[in-house]
Amino acid sequence: MNNKTLLENLRCIPDFPQKGVNFRDVTTLFKNPKCLQIMEDELYEMYKDKGVTKIVGIESRGFVMASALAIKLNAGVVLCRKPGKLPGETVQESYSKEYGTDTIEIHKDAITEDDIVLLHDDLLATGGTMKAAYDLVKKFNPKKVYVNFLIELIHEDLNGRSNFEEGTDITSLLQV
Amino acid sequence: MNNKTLLENLRCIPDFPQKGVNFRDVTTLFKNPKCLQIMEDELYEMYKDKGVTKIVGIESRGFVMASALAIKLNAGVVLCRKPGKLPGETVQESYSKEYGTDTIEIHKDAITEDDIVLLHDDLLATGGTMKAAYDLVKKFNPKKVYVNFLIELIHEDLNGRSNFEEGTDITSLLQV
Repeated sequence: MNNKTLLENLRCIPDFPQKGVNFRDVTTLFKNPKCLQIMEDELYEMYKDKGVTKIVGIESRGFVMASALAIKLNAGVVLCRKPGKLPGETVQESYSKEYGTDTIEIHKDAITEDDIVLLHDDLLATGGTMKAAYDLVKKFNPKKVYVNFLIELIHEDLNGRSNFEEGTDITSLLQV
Repeated sequence: MNNKTLLENLRCIPDFPQKGVNFRDVTTLFKNPKCLQIMEDELYEMYKDKGVTKIVGIESRGFVMASALAIKLNAGVVLCRKPGKLPGETVQESYSKEYGTDTIEIHKDAITEDDIVLLHDDLLATGGTMKAAYDLVKKFNPKKVYVNFLIELIHEDLNGRSNFEEGTDITSLLQV
């Protein structure tokens, strides 16, 4: 959709977190009330008819829009976190990164087979974390899993969508 | 206020993150659509007439209700994070913990002197992190600073409110 107000307010920070990366900084959208409202409205329009019952926010910028949208959709929010931060029993998923592996987890009782789940994060780059979150949520055997990002980086070296099996329902508000 | 539905749904996990601590787990409120709605409604009633322009969410459970409330109050969301996670220029505050010190930061351009700020986190225990966030936000010289928690632990050994100067406007949804 590439809303003009969102694009104008999205900040680009060179060489973060490492040299050569142009980091898209969503905090400039979060701090702007108009941008927050536009993001909520656009997400609501995209998912209002999908019957979503749980929105999984990916640690931790994904938590921001997950809850606002959840309230509007009458869904619950589930936190997908790094190990050791969730106090209850969890289900885990590990995945490879450029150097070594990483693990994420969700509370064991947070999702059921009756849920329709929307996974949400701020940014799709390589897609490694979201693919792990997707595989993790699939272990709960929910009725359906949707995937959403605020921003999708369109770059031949990244191709984040290629991580997901064909037919996976993936959307993004901005493609840059 | 101690809303009965919230109290009933708040999970208590013994010995987390260490032995002897009864951890109040707000994720059971987050995953429940009814509880999310009650929390948003109660927070909105408390702050609707305060002219709040920025809600500062404390990393990272504080992000969850900060954004939902911000949209309802037509305010922006600002993330208060641990060092190295915010890509732009930041202002920092360090504080003592039981073992060693910790630092939190906010983007330098995230708050102005015209802002009325609401600081939000999930839990008031010793209050160390929130006091640091309070001092950090004060450096921006905003018009007014409010402080809110979802849950306030009432225990003579904690007394989290005693960290703050007299007259600080502090509220909590549940006192347990």
